[in-house]
Amino acid sequence: MPRGYTFGRAEEATHPDSARATLAEFLSTLVFVFAGEGSVLALAKMYKDTTLGASSLVVIALAHALSLFAAVASSMNVSGGHVNPAVTFGALVGGRVSVLRAIYYWIAQLLGSVLAAILLRLATDGLRPRGFSVADGVGEWNALLMEIVLTFGLVYTVYATAIDPKRGSLGTIAPLAIAFIVGANVLVGGPFSGASMNPARAFGPALVGWRWRNHWVYWLGPFIGAALAGVIYEFGVIQADTPHHTHHQPLTPEDY
Amino acid sequence: MPRGYTFGRAEEATHPDSARATLAEFLSTLVFVFAGEGSVLALAKMYKDTTLGASSLVVIALAHALSLFAAVASSMNVSGGHVNPAVTFGALVGGRVSVLRAIYYWIAQLLGSVLAAILLRLATDGLRPRGFSVADGVGEWNALLMEIVLTFGLVYTVYATAIDPKRGSLGTIAPLAIAFIVGANVLVGGPFSGASMNPARAFGPALVGWRWRNHWVYWLGPFIGAALAGVIYEFGVIQADTPHHTHHQPLTPEDY
Amino acid sequence: MPRGYTFGRAEEATHPDSARATLAEFLSTLVFVFAGEGSVLALAKMYKDTTLGASSLVVIALAHALSLFAAVASSMNVSGGHVNPAVTFGALVGGRVSVLRAIYYWIAQLLGSVLAAILLRLATDGLRPRGFSVADGVGEWNALLMEIVLTFGLVYTVYATAIDPKRGSLGTIAPLAIAFIVGANVLVGGPFSGASMNPARAFGPALVGWRWRNHWVYWLGPFIGAALAGVIYEFGVIQADTPHHTHHQPLTPEDY
Amino acid sequence: MPRGYTFGRAEEATHPDSARATLAEFLSTLVFVFAGEGSVLALAKMYKDTTLGASSLVVIALAHALSLFAAVASSMNVSGGHVNPAVTFGALVGGRVSVLRAIYYWIAQLLGSVLAAILLRLATDGLRPRGFSVADGVGEWNALLMEIVLTFGLVYTVYATAIDPKRGSLGTIAPLAIAFIVGANVLVGGPFSGASMNPARAFGPALVGWRWRNHWVYWLGPFIGAALAGVIYEFGVIQADTPHHTHHQPLTPEDY
Repeated sequence: MPRGYTFGRAEEATHPDSARATLAEFLSTLVFVFAGEGSVLALAKMYKDTTLGASSLVVIALAHALSLFAAVASSMNVSGGHVNPAVTFGALVGGRVSVLRAIYYWIAQLLGSVLAAILLRLATDGLRPRGFSVADGVGEWNALLMEIVLTFGLVYTVYATAIDPKRGSLGTIAPLAIAFIVGANVLVGGPFSGASMNPARAFGPALVGWRWRNHWVYWLGPFIGAALAGVIYEFGVIQADTPHHTHHQPLTPEDY
Repeated sequence: MPRGYTFGRAEEATHPDSARATLAEFLSTLVFVFAGEGSVLALAKMYKDTTLGASSLVVIALAHALSLFAAVASSMNVSGGHVNPAVTFGALVGGRVSVLRAIYYWIAQLLGSVLAAILLRLATDGLRPRGFSVADGVGEWNALLMEIVLTFGLVYTVYATAIDPKRGSLGTIAPLAIAFIVGANVLVGGPFSGASMNPARAFGPALVGWRWRNHWVYWLGPFIGAALAGVIYEFGVIQADTPHHTHHQPLTPEDY
Repeated sequence: MPRGYTFGRAEEATHPDSARATLAEFLSTLVFVFAGEGSVLALAKMYKDTTLGASSLVVIALAHALSLFAAVASSMNVSGGHVNPAVTFGALVGGRVSVLRAIYYWIAQLLGSVLAAILLRLATDGLRPRGFSVADGVGEWNALLMEIVLTFGLVYTVYATAIDPKRGSLGTIAPLAIAFIVGANVLVGGPFSGASMNPARAFGPALVGWRWRNHWVYWLGPFIGAALAGVIYEFGVIQADTPHHTHHQPLTPEDY
Repeated sequence: MPRGYTFGRAEEATHPDSARATLAEFLSTLVFVFAGEGSVLALAKMYKDTTLGASSLVVIALAHALSLFAAVASSMNVSGGHVNPAVTFGALVGGRVSVLRAIYYWIAQLLGSVLAAILLRLATDGLRPRGFSVADGVGEWNALLMEIVLTFGLVYTVYATAIDPKRGSLGTIAPLAIAFIVGANVLVGGPFSGASMNPARAFGPALVGWRWRNHWVYWLGPFIGAALAGVIYEFGVIQADTPHHTHHQPLTPEDY
């Protein structure tokens, strides 16, 4: 990680004390997956058939957006507020977390998701978690592309609002931008791939509900999308500034 | 409360002048319960049958989230913005309010909820408040677990964004995180336990509508969930820092 | 206005240059009423019958909350962001605006609403604006009480987040709290009184659509609710502090 | 651009390094159009007929508002967060961007929209993008007026919260105000003109789906509305202050 001038702030933002950070990722992922998967089960409790209507799509999108906001806000200052192995991977690709820390985060995120799915199964009198699968009439490769693009939008937003050392006052609204792009993306991808954008979100319900159809899509898609966003933002937007050596001075934009 | 270094800011955040704080808790709980219970009665006015559809779930979740945001924002600087006996209990367990203050808050919150239910009954030409009860086909103990987990998520969010002395700029968005996790949780727990997470929210309508079935669930569940969140956050996240004696210095995270 | 110590900041917050302030109130009310009334007409375009379903209620609540947020945020620093004659009346009762300024604001707000209703009629190929009336099966006095309570919640929120000189960083989220309580209140009062909370919101569509049934409810209710909130907050919460003379010192709360 | 005193901050806010700014406009428009148009296709996937219900309107409004928030927040500090050729035009009319920069932004915005439409077509197994057209029973000139008024509200909000040099702390919530007024306006204009307010949002899907009916409405309407807002705000609100020469002093409002 040779990026000298951004390192100090990046370290502060994403490399705090690791045990607390790992605990925060675990708890925030638990809260998020409980709400996200729980909203799907709440609809299953209300309707016997599985047809998804527009109102159901709103329920699922709001449950994900609102709970992710709380989850990211709660862990932002402690762990960086990833709550998503793909976000951690995007940060790793851009050199914003160490490999060891990424592994700790991944384990915590997956465990949080699994515990959320177990608690849901108990609290709903045994409803079997659904997780994600590709919708009827949608090709697996099309769904993969959907997950790639949706996760690209998510991780691009994370980079621009939560990681970019020049984000300034945007840092305050980063959890909102992250939560809202996930909510919007659920409204788009829901009827096609399910719009997971998050391998932990997919894994816990898959394990506890033992449903593995198309499961690889929900790992490969988010990781590709996150890597693309990390590389493009880190080297296209942030790195482009490095030669200017302007980080301690006020912005001196040059109009053309 | 021996936690020396956090005490100054905690005091500032949660121990203001008690009469104004108690008034603020009363008024904010009034506003919140009027909207929350009122949205249920609004649906009852529109539909004769009580079947809950996905759109109705969105109405109830939004009414709770949007009004709780205003209620917490309005009382945050005066009383700490609890608006919920379970939140006050969680703060008590973590040593963030005194017992006497907690008792004042509880009385104010319950009175606010009762007055809200009375005003609703008058303004809706006598509709009998519904309050909460466990849904058909759901066990009482499952509903208890649901309320425990949902309230855990709520109070964990309160601790991380509104109480943690290191929350920093997150304090600005704390009311949003608190309101949004409640909105998400209503979308999950609504069809099972009703997703109260708040004994005051349950008590006023129960008293004015005189419906007490399963009422104990809406006290015990939130109090257990809040206590768990208070203990885990206070002693797992905040206390873990105490030995570092870093509170007057900038963060010096050590990567591993 | 003898409240010496709060005067400086109150003046800054609510008494800026009057011509610009009046223009801002006009434009913001135009934007708000166009969206609020427009959402009702959008539903009328989609459905021939006037039955209000839960999804329609969500549409109306969101249109009001989202547009009011933009309208209040746009005028907050210029005029104080009232966008509502009842809010101006509440500020007048608490001594936060002069009578002359209140009259300018009222005229601007009513004109903005009338122009919004005219533009809507033109843009929708002549749909007749609906405005507000009391729902079937609801007594006029019950609807009056509903408007009183709903407006009390709104103006209490305005005082706590936008007017209180001790609001601190809450000022940043004041437009959100104001918009969200209106959104929540529409979800409650919509099927009963319509949940206007705002005489300008009611007046423009009433004039352009020429519908005056129950119109007095939408002036008297909001004005009573706003006056109650202004008096209770100004003299119960803010004034209670005056003897402490603490405004230039950090908060020194005394626990009991 | 002779407005000396506002120039320094305006430059900082809207004239950063042009290559990065153009890239940011491209990527943010891509994210926004993918979600906005994608939500329409998601509804098309769920329902065979094209009847728009209230729930569908909520889906579309939320997809636009939530994704636009992320898109504006992500590009605010880099390019000014336009994500819309009409916003760029409004800024050009008010003298806030140079002609050359506006042309770069327009190209980036249109390319981002086209790529979004292509990716959507691939990810949805070939669904043909819809774009915008005037609803049955609505005149083309009425739809034009609708787009003018809706875009006026949007660009007025952009000026008041993101461009006005006296916006102060409102800058933090500017992306929210911009996103929310778009969401509200979709709820109004959706059943009439479709509520584009953004020529890039209309162009990409029109090109990839090859649907050009009424397309001129979605260029002329937004440009007129944006120009009106730019002129009124720039010369009615901001310029009105210039003679006071107060920009380095605290506000000294004079009550009347």
